[in-house]
Formats: sequence, C-alpha cells, structure tokens
Amino acid sequence: MATTGKVIRCKAAVAWEPNKPLVIEEIEVAPPQANEVRIKIVATGLCHTDLYHLFEGMHKDGFPAVLGHEGAGIVESVGPGVTEFQPGDKVIPLFLSQCRECRFCKSPKTNQCEKGWAVDRYDVMALEDTRFTYSKYLVNTCFRIFFNQNLMSFRFSVQHDGKESRFTCKGKKVLQFMGTSTFSEYTVVNQIAVAKIDPAAPLDKVCLLGCGICTGYGAAVNTAKVEPGSTCAVFGLGAVGLAAVMGCKAAGAKKIIAVDINPEKFEKAKVFGATDFVNPKDHDKPISQVLAEMTNGGVDYSLECTGNVGVMRSALESCIQAWGVSVIVGWTELHDVATRPVQLIAGRTWKGSIFGGFKSKDGVSEMVKAYLDKKVKVDEFITHNMTLDQINDAIELMKHSKCIRTVLNISPE
Amino acid sequence: MATTGKVIRCKAAVAWEPNKPLVIEEIEVAPPQANEVRIKIVATGLCHTDLYHLFEGMHKDGFPAVLGHEGAGIVESVGPGVTEFQPGDKVIPLFLSQCRECRFCKSPKTNQCEKGWAVDRYDVMALEDTRFTYSKYLVNTCFRIFFNQNLMSFRFSVQHDGKESRFTCKGKKVLQFMGTSTFSEYTVVNQIAVAKIDPAAPLDKVCLLGCGICTGYGAAVNTAKVEPGSTCAVFGLGAVGLAAVMGCKAAGAKKIIAVDINPEKFEKAKVFGATDFVNPKDHDKPISQVLAEMTNGGVDYSLECTGNVGVMRSALESCIQAWGVSVIVGWTELHDVATRPVQLIAGRTWKGSIFGGFKSKDGVSEMVKAYLDKKVKVDEFITHNMTLDQINDAIELMKHSKCIRTVLNISPE
Ligand SMILES: NC(=O)c1ccc[n+]([C@@H]2O[C@H](COP(=O)([O-])OP(=O)(O)OC[C@H]3O[C@@H](n4cnc5c(N)ncnc54)[C@H](O)[C@@H]3O)[C@@H](O)[C@H]2O)c1
Ligand SMILES: NC(=O)c1ccc[n+]([C@@H]2O[C@H](COP(=O)([O-])OP(=O)(O)OC[C@H]3O[C@@H](n4cnc5c(N)ncnc54)[C@H](O)[C@@H]3O)[C@@H](O)[C@H]2O)c1
Ligand SMILES: [Zn+2]
Ligand SMILES: [Zn+2]
Ligand SMILES: [Zn+2]
Ligand SMILES: [Zn+2]
Repeated sequence: MATTGKVIRCKAAVAWEPNKPLVIEEIEVAPPQANEVRIKIVATGLCHTDLYHLFEGMHKDGFPAVLGHEGAGIVESVGPGVTEFQPGDKVIPLFLSQCRECRFCKSPKTNQCEKGWAVDRYDVMALEDTRFTYSKYLVNTCFRIFFNQNLMSFRFSVQHDGKESRFTCKGKKVLQFMGTSTFSEYTVVNQIAVAKIDPAAPLDKVCLLGCGICTGYGAAVNTAKVEPGSTCAVFGLGAVGLAAVMGCKAAGAKKIIAVDINPEKFEKAKVFGATDFVNPKDHDKPISQVLAEMTNGGVDYSLECTGNVGVMRSALESCIQAWGVSVIVGWTELHDVATRPVQLIAGRTWKGSIFGGFKSKDGVSEMVKAYLDKKVKVDEFITHNMTLDQINDAIELMKHSKCIRTVLNISPE
Repeated sequence: MATTGKVIRCKAAVAWEPNKPLVIEEIEVAPPQANEVRIKIVATGLCHTDLYHLFEGMHKDGFPAVLGHEGAGIVESVGPGVTEFQPGDKVIPLFLSQCRECRFCKSPKTNQCEKGWAVDRYDVMALEDTRFTYSKYLVNTCFRIFFNQNLMSFRFSVQHDGKESRFTCKGKKVLQFMGTSTFSEYTVVNQIAVAKIDPAAPLDKVCLLGCGICTGYGAAVNTAKVEPGSTCAVFGLGAVGLAAVMGCKAAGAKKIIAVDINPEKFEKAKVFGATDFVNPKDHDKPISQVLAEMTNGGVDYSLECTGNVGVMRSALESCIQAWGVSVIVGWTELHDVATRPVQLIAGRTWKGSIFGGFKSKDGVSEMVKAYLDKKVKVDEFITHNMTLDQINDAIELMKHSKCIRTVLNISPE
C-alpha cells in the first residue's frame, strides 16, 4: 500500500477531557511497530463502556484519548514479526488479548490473557517509574490493577503490550482506549488483540461482535452456563443484556425474564427470546422479591447488564438459594458491591464475566461464523446508522437509553 | 424403654438470655411426636455458631434456648411414623435436614432441603400469624429468611418442620437451637434431621462430624472442589478451618496456606496438611497482597472460616483472577460483605457453603465411615474433654481461641 511505513493523517473523534463532547480532529497514526497491525476501521459500535470512561469513570489521566472498542476493519499494513495478518484481511480489534502462550491463555478455565496486561497487579507502581513514565496509564481497562485495601487503582494505556500510543494530535500524544480506539479512521493494535474473520462478513454488522454481543451472549452461555429448561433473569436491556437474553434462549432456558426501567426495551427483548417483562418502577417491593414470587423462589440464573451495584445485588438476591448463579457483566469501578454473606452460604454463586468468557480471538471468529450461518442475530441490535461526524448524537441516544446500538460507518469496505 | 411415652426430666445448659453464662437446669423433654426421634445425647462439641448466637447475634427473641448442634447420641424412643430409627440406634442430630423428597434434596446441585425450612423466605410473615404464633422464631438458623432490601430477618425455631419445642423449664417454653439442642441429656429431633451411623463409632469423637469437621472438609472438597496440584488458603484455624485444610489436602492441593491471627494454631494446621503459615499481624500490607506475592498472583482456592466480613473480602481478593474460587464458610448476619465488581469480572467466583455442601444424612454417615476407615482425622481436633457442668469453661476457651474443640461428655454410651 502507498501508506505502508508512513504516518497516516486521518479523522478521529478525540475525547480531550472527561464529560465533554468528542471533537472530530485530524490525527497522525504512526506505522505499526513490531507485532502491531494498522487497521482501517470500516464501522464501529458505541458501547456503554465508552460512555463510562467519558462520563462516569472520568479519570483525568485517561484523557486525551480516542475511545471505541467495538469496531471492524481491514488490515492496512503490519509491523515486523506479524505473520498471522496481511494487508486486506478483515479483522476485529479486541480489547481483550489472546496471546495463546501465557498460563491464562493455556487454561480452559479463563478467557483472560496475561500478556494483554503485561504486568502483575502488584508491580504497576514500579513499572510506572520505568517503561510507563510516558503515561500514567495502563493498558486494557480492566486489568492493570493493583489493590491497596479497598483502593483500587485502575488505569488505561495505549497498546496491549504496554507500548505507547501510535496517535498524536496537534503535537500531543493521544491515548488509545482499551488498546483499540475504533472511533478513528485508522488505529494500531498489537497482533495478540486482533481477530481475523471470514472475508464474507459485512463489517458494518459484525463490528458489534467486538464487544456487546459476544459479552452478553457469552456471559449466559460460557460464564453462567445456563442449562436447558432453566429460568433466567436479565437486568438491563441494552445490547449487552439483549445478547444475554439471546444466549439464555440459545442455551434452552424456558423462562427468560427481561428487567429494565425503560419499558421501551421490552419489545426488542421479545425478539431475542424473552418470555416475561418486569419494570422495577411498577413495583413497590424489592425486585428480588417480585422475581422470587414469579419463579417459586428465585431464578436459576441472573445476568446483570447495567453497571449499577444496586442492580448487581438485586440480581444475586433474585436467584434461588441452593443453586442460583448470578453473573456481573455491567462495569463500574466507582463503588463496592455488597450482599449479606448468608445469600452465598444459602447456595448462590456470584461470578463476573469479561467479554462473555470467550477467548477473544477464537470467540470472535466463531461468533462471526455463527452470524453468517444465521445461528446468532446481529442486525437486530442495530437501531441507528450514523457517520463518525455524528458521534455525539450517538452518545446522546445511548445516554438517554434511546437506542440499542448505533453503528458508525467510518470508511467504505 | 421405661421412659417411652413419658416426659423425661434431665439436665441441660439453658441460655436464658444473650451474653450471659449458660445455666445448668433441670428441664422437661416431652415425648417425640409424629416423625420425631428422642435422643439421649452422649457427647457434644461446641461450635463457634453457638457462641455467635449467644454473644454476637444476640437476638433477644432467640432466648431462652438450649444451644448445641454438634452432638451424637442414642435413640431413646421414636414417635409415630418413624420407621428409619429404633431405640438403641447410634445417631447424629443434624441442623440441616435431608427429607429426600423435596426439589432441593432431589437435586445433585445442593445439600439444602426445603422441608427443613418448611417455608419459602417470602411467606414467613404470614406463617408467623398462624402456625408460628407460639414462637417468633424459626428453625434452622440459616434459612428461614426473608429479604426486605438490605433488611434480612433471621429467625430460629424449634423443630425442623416448624413444630414447637419439646423443652420446658420452670414452666417456660425453651427454644431448640437449630433444631438440635445438644447441650442437653435428651433432645427431640425430626427424623428428616437425624443421621444413623455405624454402631462401631465412638460417640465422644464422631459428635464433631455433626458440624465443624464436615463443614470445613466439605467446603474444600464439595463446594470449592479443590483440584489436585492447586494452591489454597484457609483463613481461620478453628475446627472448621482445620477441617478445610484437611479437605484441601485430601483433594491433592500442593500448597495450603494457613492464615490466623493466633499463631498458636499453626502447629495444629501442620498436622492437617498446611504447608505455609501466615499471621496477618506480621504484615503491613493487605493480606491479599501478601498471599498474591507468595503464589504468583493469588491462590486457586480460598476458604474463609472466621465469620468476619473483612476476612471474607480478603479471602476473595487473595484468589487469583481468571479462575480463583473463594468460599465463605464463617457465619454472620450482622454485616454486609463487599468487594469491587471488577474482582468478580476479572474471573473470581464467590460461593458460600453450609455444612460443607454435604447432603446431611448421607454425608454424616459417610464421614463416620471414613473416620472408622482412618481416611479422615477426628481425634486430632479434640483439645479438651469436659462435662456438661463445665460448659461455661468450654465457652471461655473458644472465646479466647484457646482450644480447637472441647468435647463435653454428657452421658456414658
Ligand atoms: N464485562 C464486560 O466485558 C462488558 C463489556 C461491555 C459492556 N459492559 C458493561 O455492560 C453494561 C451494559 O452495556 P450496554 O452497552 O448494553 O449499555 P446500555 O446503556 O445500552 O444499556 C443499559 C440498559 O440498562 C438499563 N438500566 C439502567 N439502570 C437500570 C436499573 N436500575 N434496572 C434495570 N435496568 C436498568 C437501561 O435502561 C438500558 O436499557 C455497561 O455497564 C457496560 O459498561 C461490560
Ligand atoms: N457455614 C457453616 O455451615 C458453618 C458451620 C459451622 C461453623 N460455621 C462458622 O465457621 C466459623 C468458624 O467456626 P469455628 O468453630 O472453627 O470457630 P473458632 O472460633 O474455633 O475458630 C475461628 C478461628 O478464626 C481465627 N480468626 C479470627 N479472626 C481472624 C482474622 N481476622 N484473620 C484470621 N483468623 C482469624 C481465630 O483465631 C480462630 O482460630 C464461625 O464463623 C462459625 O459460625 C459455619
Ligand atoms: Zn464494550
Ligand atoms: Zn495470553
Ligand atoms: Zn457449627
Ligand atoms: Zn428435602
């Protein structure tokens, strides 16, 4: 390609500071370095986790950044050492890496990858003094964490392996959110966090498999391991929750209770397989009690897809004692989540799920195939299509719970 | 027997009110009614849950009561409808029932029994107005629960099926704690909560299988499902925690870290298989960080056996992300337990365990056999032997962490 080895100047939506509209800017995207892939983004979804960073987490050191982690695109060029990808390949950038070599990647028990975080949670401080001095931030949202009693420091960086961002704008480094940054015409991602997908896949649809759909679907199928004939409840009917409903249905659940404070979501939930609908605002009783009464003591599985710690507690306590399993999918690092110990002693299990428990590269490729084979729905999640210039409108829609997913069409395939 | 069908007058330790020494009294024990078994208690252990009721829970409506739920004895007589037991049988009374008929008993996923609690958590209030008016309390500590947001009402009663206590003293009804009440020469227990055991079993040893040992051992083996070669941590080295150590060892764990603020417990922990010893008081860092450093990121399994919600949190956060499993065994209903959601999202699983996940009748009989076959240790838990008259001394020992188990020898076999 004409651009190989050169800096690309292109359009991106830059989050200069927390709680402000994004600004469409011309940025410079450096060529991929060793083990990196430069990708032309064709389309991207907007996930609530982008909003979380902008409006809720608002950690000042997480800016300026290019958000976006639910995109699909085409490889433009590759850096030294990359053999798995070639220019022209259709790919989905991943916020969760899969190096295939670390102890986590080698274990069937988890979809996490140690390389993606590069450091153990306890040596973050040391790293900041050396490799990480250029940025106070660490990669890969969730995982570069260290714990100091209740204090959890939580950081973003730039590239999955901890290398610096390939973005600059007006002479300033711009961070890469979750190692992906899909709100840009071009991005650079480490090869351990790129999934090659079927060339037949329409990128303006399968981009949604980069986060929300895999997350919700897998949380039901892989993490909760919903069983045939069971009773489930899904809290929060955004794309993540609706995908969880779809996962429960695929797993053979016989009753799927869809819970949202916005009843406009119920019709869509029906499309994905929900059988019952509950708006907590319609009840004076705690929602866990409402659900227990509907289900002879509680649901077998509950999935929390809102990011609200009160809902996480309700979801757990809505499960039947003895064997109920509750999975936290929603994201927040601002508050503790709590319950009474007896809720667990009585037989409930509390889990969490990142990217639906899918090993990221393998899972995305399989889910793209499942979509092409019409085994999972994707199109039905898309309620709006927009251009990158309209990104602040897309943000407003999600903020007010007025969309499921908006797909931003960034470049033609 | 000469006593069949008659009221028995005998000695018992009565807890007249919270936070006071027990009083040795003469009580009347009514004959067993339908489905009930009257048992001569030969020996009983003292478990921290007895202390919890007396000194921590202290719910005024839970008194007067006869505490004790870790005993063994001999059937004196049986009520109508009892076919499984005969006078002379060696038995262990159970705080957890196993009716073999309810949906929980029929499921391999749980050791709980719906009959033992007789009511769903949500109709407790209604029941109180009718059947339960004689007592504000429900049976079976853990389970007669209803939830009103964060409010958890938690009650004791008398008999596993909700029938009234068979005890009176000085003209007053005296409650039966956890459906058992083993601090008495005689007690009456519903047949769904009595385990028949091998006649060769020495009752002054196997009484400990009525709670603490099965609880800890099973929490490791049945609830955590510790795998061979794994790394474990056990918090709290009372009988429950030491039995958890024994369970980890039996399951093939290669590293078992024993954690207690009382370092006198470490020697005993070695006997049961602990390989490493940590006193949180020796460290400035959070204990989860200490353990993570000892284990390359955290233990595979942790078992909390103290009843302290701070320790429950530490135990969870001491697990390795990706696949760590933490089990709450300790008991408290006074506080919430909390963590950051990301701790679960990062791949940890939080569970709880009651009676070690053993189906109570089956489990106790098997564990007695395992003891007779020298596959599990019991004698090693006994640090003191006393008589019923000395029960307040036994309580003091446990309060000050100066014993593992004291066995009270109540009647000769
Ligand atoms: N764990 C992961 O890997 C992962 C991945 C993607 C997204 N997430 C998180 O999942 C959550 C959902 O993401 P999304 O993109 O579907 O968000 P969304 O904003 O599209 O949907 C959230 C839904 O929750 C509903 N809701 C809000 N408060 C509620 C309450 N109290 N009770 C019931 N419903 C309520 C809203 O009406 C909305 O329909 C977010 O917290 C996001 O950060 C987690
Ligand atoms: N879930 C169940 O079925 C079940 C059954 C029996 C007992 N229990 C509960 O298990 C717990 C243990 O019972 P036990 O009879 O072994 O009690 P115990 O009092 O004999 O032992 C508790 C141990 O915990 C240690 N400890 C206290 N605080 C600690 C801390 N902060 N860090 C580390 N160690 C600490 C003490 O030094 C002591 O060695 C109690 O809470 C009891 O109520 C639960
Ligand atoms: Zn997302
Ligand atoms: Zn890896
Ligand atoms: Zn006990
Ligand atoms: Zn039962």
